[in-house]
Order: sequence, then structure tokens, then C-alpha cells
Amino acid sequence: MEIYEFGQRLIREAGDFIRLRMKKDFRIDAKLNPNDLVTDVDRETETYIYDRILERYPDHRIIGEEGHGTDIEDTEGVLWIVDPIDGTLNFVHQLQNFAVSIGVYVDGRPHCGMILDVMNDHLYHAKAGEGAFKDDIRLAPLEDTDLAHSLVSLNSNWVVREGIGQAFTKVVREARSTRSYGSAALDMAFTATGIVSATLFYRLHPWDYSAGMIIISEVGGRTTNLLGEEIDVLKKDSILAGNQAIHGELVGYFDSDASFIESHRRTHGEK
Amino acid sequence: MEIYEFGQRLIREAGDFIRLRMKKDFRIDAKLNPNDLVTDVDRETETYIYDRILERYPDHRIIGEEGHGTDIEDTEGVLWIVDPIDGTLNFVHQLQNFAVSIGVYVDGRPHCGMILDVMNDHLYHAKAGEGAFKDDIRLAPLEDTDLAHSLVSLNSNWVVREGIGQAFTKVVREARSTRSYGSAALDMAFTATGIVSATLFYRLHPWDYSAGMIIISEVGGRTTNLLGEEIDVLKKDSILAGNQAIHGELVGYFDSDASFIESHRRTHGEK
Repeated sequence: MEIYEFGQRLIREAGDFIRLRMKKDFRIDAKLNPNDLVTDVDRETETYIYDRILERYPDHRIIGEEGHGTDIEDTEGVLWIVDPIDGTLNFVHQLQNFAVSIGVYVDGRPHCGMILDVMNDHLYHAKAGEGAFKDDIRLAPLEDTDLAHSLVSLNSNWVVREGIGQAFTKVVREARSTRSYGSAALDMAFTATGIVSATLFYRLHPWDYSAGMIIISEVGGRTTNLLGEEIDVLKKDSILAGNQAIHGELVGYFDSDASFIESHRRTHGEK
Repeated sequence: MEIYEFGQRLIREAGDFIRLRMKKDFRIDAKLNPNDLVTDVDRETETYIYDRILERYPDHRIIGEEGHGTDIEDTEGVLWIVDPIDGTLNFVHQLQNFAVSIGVYVDGRPHCGMILDVMNDHLYHAKAGEGAFKDDIRLAPLEDTDLAHSLVSLNSNWVVREGIGQAFTKVVREARSTRSYGSAALDMAFTATGIVSATLFYRLHPWDYSAGMIIISEVGGRTTNLLGEEIDVLKKDSILAGNQAIHGELVGYFDSDASFIESHRRTHGEK
């Protein structure tokens, strides 16, 4: 069994683990600071996934949300980039609309990506060069669209943010409409399936976007940061993913805005 | 069979009708103006629903999105308020995440409300005084929450709108996070189930909110306009629905903002 097949089986098992675990009594205090909303389930699921990867592939390396792999500074060998529960606020408040996200890179090149919509039990997955799937249905190549005739996903907290809000505001005004689903991994899966034509984030971690990037690439879409620059999968960055046409159009809203560029450089550094 | 049971059967049949109709070839041109996105399916579903209501209850009256009942100026007798497809943009772009919404008022008083999430085949429904349900599961009473610890649904197009955006901006900044799902009826159903703690709209029609208001009321929630004023089910208005605590808190963001009040009066008139 190769990595892609093992990964799909693993993420399905992680989904089973989470659903089973949620039936037991588990404590979430929704009044906690959002940053503290890492629940028992999140930690246990991470351990579950990590143990299985390292049991099978002792020489592989793992980067994850809960502080693992922070020492990793190169992409040599096989790198698993794991988010046990993407969309923590949805998990806490809704008990649905969250995902497990696993991206695998081999010597810095995309190998395969998997996003499991846990409660709907849908697996979005792709191996580089072999197309993308929702469960066993092959996803169609993305069609070009323009912003005025498209739904795009973005969260309004970026729209109201000093220094960057004015660029997002223009996007909102020009788009046919916007959606916010609250899980970056699912937003990227929804971009790959055409539920939205693009998705925009000001700040994501590798475990939020790495699987989605691979899946989107396999349906002919494009992922860069909001300034149109290539993503380094070891680094936090802004993310802009969509079909080729809307991606190009959207970059224009950000790379032409001096105040946005300045804020972006301050947050994410110089490329 | 009384109205509530008939209505539930009817909305389920309308859902079957839509799903079946979508399998046939049907034309939607997503490049049309949003106002022209009333599809064949929308019109046919409306006819389907209207015919069945009037066949059974020839003396009942119907208000609907496609121009029916525009002459209705009182709430005497039995009034059906019908949206055959709520969330037209989702219908067109996603082929999911849209709803049929039916609210029934008797002599101006709420009688029953039904919202069908068509593609997920979930029916949210309530009869006044008898509690609310998702399919056959009774919904729990809403718990009080505050904005800082809540997800609320609102669309960012209100956030960027001149004259009203500053009030919505404050809400976005204070909320734990916002969601946008693109169907007002489903947003209200999600408020009744606690998926979001509140939902806010600057402008809705009776067929967008009438069913949702009844369902939310049956779980102890409150629906008014954004200024905290009671809704007249024959009129367009802004809508603010949520649990009692967050509703009260959110009204404070709008009824203290002179510029917002002025814009609201210009759009919706004086109460």
C-alpha cells in the first residue's frame, strides 16, 4: 500500500475516531478564549494520526497544528502536514462543518492531499498528476469565471481589519456574493468542487492549506498568496485559491494596493 | 388533516419535485443578472405549491416571491407565505444549500412554519405553541449567549454598504466569528438549531423570514428588525433573530447609531 492509499485509509479512520469520541462525554467550554479551544478530541486525534504515520513510516516527518514539527526547516524526504481538526470554532459551536486535513510532500513536491468533511463523511482527495476526487467521484476541471458572476468565500473579519480591509471591501463589492463556512480546509475543498469559485484568507498555516492546494491544482485551479506569489509549504501566508481566471483577477485587487502590500509584508515578510 | 400536517406533506412533495426536476435538463445561465436568476424550476415549483394549496383550501390566500399576493394588505383568514426556492444564488451556483420556505398565519397570528433544506432533505418545522423540530427531533430551547462568544450569520455585503456598514462592522469586530450561508431561510433554521446564535439581514421579504420567525419563536428565540421593532409579516424589513440575550445585545449596535437609523428609515420607512 502506497502513501496515498495509506493516507486515505488513515484519514477515514481518524474520522471514525472523532465521531466515536464525540459520542462520549467530552468537554468543550465555548466561553473559553478561541485560542484555547483546542479540545481533548483535537489532541487525541492528533496523537492517533501521528502514531499511525510513524508506526508505518518511522522515517517520515510530520508538521501539525499542536506544535509538532516546529523545528522542520527543509522539505527533504516525506513530510506529512496534518490538521486533526480544521475549523475548531465550528467543531465547538456546531459539532459539524469541520475537517481533518492531511497533505503529503515528497522532497518538497506535492504528493497527495486529503480533506475529510467529518460529519458529512465526504473525502476530498487527490494525488499529484492523477486528478482529484470527492469520495469516488472524479472532480471536473474548474471553469473560468469572473468575480462579478461568482461566489467567493472569505470571512468578514478580514473585511473590517485595519490596513487590509479596504482591499477585501472592494472584492466584496464586486463579487456576486460571498460565503463564509468557517473551515479553511473545507473552503479549499469547496473551491475544488466549484461550490465557490475562489477562497481568500489573510493568514493560514501550512496545515490549513497544504492538502487543499494539491486538490485544487488537480482540477486546474491555482493557489498563491494574495499578492500572487508562490506558497512555501513550510510557512504561514495569505492564501488565494480559485480557477485560473478569477485567481488572476483577484490578485489585481491586492497587488495594486500599497497599504495592503505594506500590511502583508509586515505580517508575512518579504518574498 | 390540518394545515400543519398538510403543509409538511406539501413541502416534502415540493422537495421531491425540485430534486426530480433538477435531474432533467434545466437551464441556468449564471452570467445573468442576479435579478434574472429566477429559473424555470423556481417558477414551476411555485406553481406546484400554489396549485396544491388552492386545490385543498380554495379560500386561503398566498403571498410569494414571484409577484403573487402583492394586492394583499391585511392578514385576515389564512395566509400562506411561500418561497419556492430561497437561496437562488446557491441554487444556481452550487445546486445545494437552498430551501423551500412556507409560513402560515391565521388572522395575523403565527400558525406554523416549515423550511426544507432540499438537497440534505432536512425539514425544520414548528406549530405555534407546540415546539419546533428538525425532521422528527424536537429542538432544544435556545441558551443565552453573548456576541463575543458566539458565531453569527451575516453577509459581508452589508458590512461594506455605505450608511449601514459601520454598525455591521462593529458587530463583526465583536463577534467570535461570522458565517455566511447564502439562504435566509436556512440561516433562520440554523439559528433555531444553534448552528449560529443569531442571524442579521438588512433587507428581507416576508417569504424569506416568515417560516423562520415561527420556528425560532418555538425554541424561545426572538425575531425583530435590527432596531428591535416588531415585524409586520406583510412587509419587507431588516431582520435580527437569535437567542434572547444576544438579540438584546445586538439591537444595541443598531438602535444607537444615528446614521444607521436614518438609512433604515429611508429603506424601510417609519414604524
